[in-house]
Amino acid sequence: MSIIIAGGAGFIGSKLAAHFIKLGQHVLILDNVCRGREEYIKEYKKEGRLQFEKLDLADLPATARAVQAFHQKHPVDTVWHMAANSDIPAGIADAHVDLNDTFMTTFSLLQAMNAAGIKHIAFASSSAIYGDHGPDSILTEDAGPLLPISNYGAMKLASEAALSAAAESWLERVWIFRFPNVVGLPATHGVILDFIRKLQQTPNRLEVLGNGAQQKAYLHVDELVDAMLFIVAHAQEKVGVYNIGPEDAGCTVAQIAEAVVGQLSPGSPIAYGNEPRGWVGDVPKFRYSVEKLARLGWRPKHSSFDAVCRAIGEIRLQENAP
Amino acid sequence: MSIIIAGGAGFIGSKLAAHFIKLGQHVLILDNVCRGREEYIKEYKKEGRLQFEKLDLADLPATARAVQAFHQKHPVDTVWHMAANSDIPAGIADAHVDLNDTFMTTFSLLQAMNAAGIKHIAFASSSAIYGDHGPDSILTEDAGPLLPISNYGAMKLASEAALSAAAESWLERVWIFRFPNVVGLPATHGVILDFIRKLQQTPNRLEVLGNGAQQKAYLHVDELVDAMLFIVAHAQEKVGVYNIGPEDAGCTVAQIAEAVVGQLSPGSPIAYGNEPRGWVGDVPKFRYSVEKLARLGWRPKHSSFDAVCRAIGEIRLQENAP
Repeated sequence: MSIIIAGGAGFIGSKLAAHFIKLGQHVLILDNVCRGREEYIKEYKKEGRLQFEKLDLADLPATARAVQAFHQKHPVDTVWHMAANSDIPAGIADAHVDLNDTFMTTFSLLQAMNAAGIKHIAFASSSAIYGDHGPDSILTEDAGPLLPISNYGAMKLASEAALSAAAESWLERVWIFRFPNVVGLPATHGVILDFIRKLQQTPNRLEVLGNGAQQKAYLHVDELVDAMLFIVAHAQEKVGVYNIGPEDAGCTVAQIAEAVVGQLSPGSPIAYGNEPRGWVGDVPKFRYSVEKLARLGWRPKHSSFDAVCRAIGEIRLQENAP
Repeated sequence: MSIIIAGGAGFIGSKLAAHFIKLGQHVLILDNVCRGREEYIKEYKKEGRLQFEKLDLADLPATARAVQAFHQKHPVDTVWHMAANSDIPAGIADAHVDLNDTFMTTFSLLQAMNAAGIKHIAFASSSAIYGDHGPDSILTEDAGPLLPISNYGAMKLASEAALSAAAESWLERVWIFRFPNVVGLPATHGVILDFIRKLQQTPNRLEVLGNGAQQKAYLHVDELVDAMLFIVAHAQEKVGVYNIGPEDAGCTVAQIAEAVVGQLSPGSPIAYGNEPRGWVGDVPKFRYSVEKLARLGWRPKHSSFDAVCRAIGEIRLQENAP
């Protein structure tokens, strides 16, 4: 059976595409290459099993045509939906960004799948759907209330809800992954890339948004992809919701800043802001439980700090940083 | 301060409009009169404090213009958002119905409020956001996971999420009411109206979708409006989420069918279907907690069955049934 990857030219989607191509499967990538890039997948295009369509997934007629045409040639088992806006502040400045890129992509993919008769979907949701439950909560998959504090989190929750409703009437299987912060290559956004680029511009000083105390869980993209594939292979629920993440409470922005400075520009001073949040919509500290995933049989091999340090080394090379 | 009521020509919105007009406030009603009707509010139009605009709330430019123009003449304190699709099966047959009428109405109202600088919103959400937690759960406001089984429930949850995100960046106060089944006048939809109309067509037999065992909580619209006003006056949270409902576990479709037949056509047989659900997206049995609202200081005076019996009498007159 073949695979469709929405957002397949992006950070996480391109890793998934590589996995399925190596397995010998036919893959259709739908991507607006807004954050993603064709070069992330170009080495696989030579093998002939990868088809790439540049389109806006929120454009329902275009998405429906592409899905239908591919499905007729290569019957599709599962759609992997990894497409979203990934710039949280941009989505807060203009709510249309997450409406279009984070929610309408889901809505329109669902319509296209229903029309084509494809009944399995794996979806990249986010820990952002939980909102701010305070630093002492450990969020399990059944935590509530769900009051996200960014439009990104809101439109991921809206997507989960639309998938859940579709499962009641026509979808057969839904896997919802609630992602932590994910790091690795190809880096398109995120705190590590930001810090490396800032240091390239002004090597003798690193400015940090917020007071550096924000603490989050980080997972390397290779482990994330491994976890998603494990869940799809092993989960039994019709609608399976799984937190994916490291087993620790995360590391702080200050730790990341120090690790980046330590690798790229040892001894340079770090200037912190005063706010506990880096930006509106940034949850200052949270911890979520990955016990359900552990009970299913998957555990991460690395800590948040391990993942961050590995990613700093990788992104440093990607950016040709000293 | 003045008030805007989205969906103010509808079943619940028209009752709210009457309340504020009687208080001497200026009211703008925005309604597409798809379910609502201008005649529900016509007696208040004579008093000069009610302005009515027929428009599709999902049409952002039209909504923004109407909100801005009214707010300049009569500074608005709170927008009451009561507009939504209320036909759950229609929203399952075509997901665009709830996308447009249940979610995009919220999205577009939020944009219009932000542009005009109006910072308080009271929102009619629904118990449908909870999905099916089984008959033994008692759902409190922090219940999870939230996996709605209808597009109506999904787009109400999406609306809650969008309000929550907006509260983090620019809204000052949000009141989210999770409604039970609401009955009373003017009846535009719902099981009692359906049964009365069926009996008018075929007085000697009542056909019921599903096996009649579906059990739900019912509240009379007069009590609902009272509860909403109480919450807005007393809740302290920036984003206050409240279940509203009776204190009992509800009554069954069979009880409602018998009460309708008893009032309109005593002795006529009732024919039940075989399915535990009346339709896809219909939660067969659920109970939710109204303890939080009781702690705030509001308790309903009537039971589910009381509310249903009162509404049968009222709707019977509305429909000129025998």
